[in-house]
Amino acid sequence: MSKPTLFTCPSPALLHLYDVSSSIVVIIDVLRATSTIATALHNGAIEIIPVDSVPDCIRIGKELDCITAGERDGKIAEGLQYGNSPFEYPTEFIAGKTLVLTTTNGTKLLHMAHSRGAKEIITGSFPNITSVCNYLLSKNINVILGCAAWKDKVNIEDTLFAGAVINRLKENFTLECDYSQMAESLYLTAKDDLYGFMKERNATHYHRLTNYGLEKDIRYCLTNDGAPSLPVYVDGKLVNKI
Amino acid sequence: MSKPTLFTCPSPALLHLYDVSSSIVVIIDVLRATSTIATALHNGAIEIIPVDSVPDCIRIGKELDCITAGERDGKIAEGLQYGNSPFEYPTEFIAGKTLVLTTTNGTKLLHMAHSRGAKEIITGSFPNITSVCNYLLSKNINVILGCAAWKDKVNIEDTLFAGAVINRLKENFTLECDYSQMAESLYLTAKDDLYGFMKERNATHYHRLTNYGLEKDIRYCLTNDGAPSLPVYVDGKLVNKI
Repeated sequence: MSKPTLFTCPSPALLHLYDVSSSIVVIIDVLRATSTIATALHNGAIEIIPVDSVPDCIRIGKELDCITAGERDGKIAEGLQYGNSPFEYPTEFIAGKTLVLTTTNGTKLLHMAHSRGAKEIITGSFPNITSVCNYLLSKNINVILGCAAWKDKVNIEDTLFAGAVINRLKENFTLECDYSQMAESLYLTAKDDLYGFMKERNATHYHRLTNYGLEKDIRYCLTNDGAPSLPVYVDGKLVNKI
Repeated sequence: MSKPTLFTCPSPALLHLYDVSSSIVVIIDVLRATSTIATALHNGAIEIIPVDSVPDCIRIGKELDCITAGERDGKIAEGLQYGNSPFEYPTEFIAGKTLVLTTTNGTKLLHMAHSRGAKEIITGSFPNITSVCNYLLSKNINVILGCAAWKDKVNIEDTLFAGAVINRLKENFTLECDYSQMAESLYLTAKDDLYGFMKERNATHYHRLTNYGLEKDIRYCLTNDGAPSLPVYVDGKLVNKI
């Protein structure tokens, strides 16, 4: 029996090149959207509603009387309550609550995958990498690893995560995808010290977050399995299927 | 004085993210368009006219009474005379002649860069890497390394070439570009045996050309400085500025 395929899409602007309708799409926005989503769900959030814009976030937050969060340029966006850091969502704060979250790149890609008819959408990050890999193995259907990138420009951290997943799953999938091969090679180069690699390579987003004093966030977001949840997108909401 | 910038664009579908109007754009289509262009010009071709389509190639070939070349799916396209292999253009054949060449990915990117107002356009490949690097150093203006990719999907070989150029030039440019960093890292992993890396990584285009029996072409196209020309795009034609 032939294996299902695995492709890595480097940027939302290339998503049209891949057949999402037959695939589980894994939304990857390592710094920090999908790391924070994994964390909030692991810590007991009932659901997370990802929205594109700050006004939508405010509106839905009012309608549902729930927590609103999102940043623009490294600061909590005006009119919202919380930011994008995973450390803002410990169990004692988030358990049992609904979070409306606006992020730029990850949300955009998620909505694109949805509107293009993705068979299923989940989110992935180092804090929940093992849960994601186990789930993909159990489903045994085609996979697209979708990097959220930064304003459509390919980034290092999302590619490293794709490479880490490929490194674990490659025997179980058909890989006819140069970007997947490059991602795994890059991951193998970087894997002993992902943080050091990001620093050495002066990754643009590493640089941006470091300027905001967020080294601790970066280290957490590059560490495996700190928040072993499985965020699945169902009816406009991300819920934990573990 | 601040250094000029260098960016790497992974795919024609992402070219709009980069400011070509202030930059030299290096068109990279390693297998095999830009390797063949470098070779034909080095071997004395007067000029190469890159065109998008087979019908255009035939028409211009008749108008100018010159050589027409191009492949589709690994075979010489119907109505054209020659293929895309650099070995078809030795000095005794091509010196003093004009070549009208149609390729899918490289030509598309070149015309996109031109229509977006690129300051200057040259083509790059391993057979003319040193000429390209020397030229970029001498100009001291912003550079965009443009990978032709394969039907807009990112490929390994064009990225490796970008990485090789970056490895030589990085001290002379400002690199705020994750894809450039990834390309250089990939190149450093692969550089001792580019052919072996392509094979090991089962690069899709390596696979395609190997199926056509073109290992010799691949090896040549991954070897430095076999054809030290400098193809510059002027008035719709590529001419050798060395």
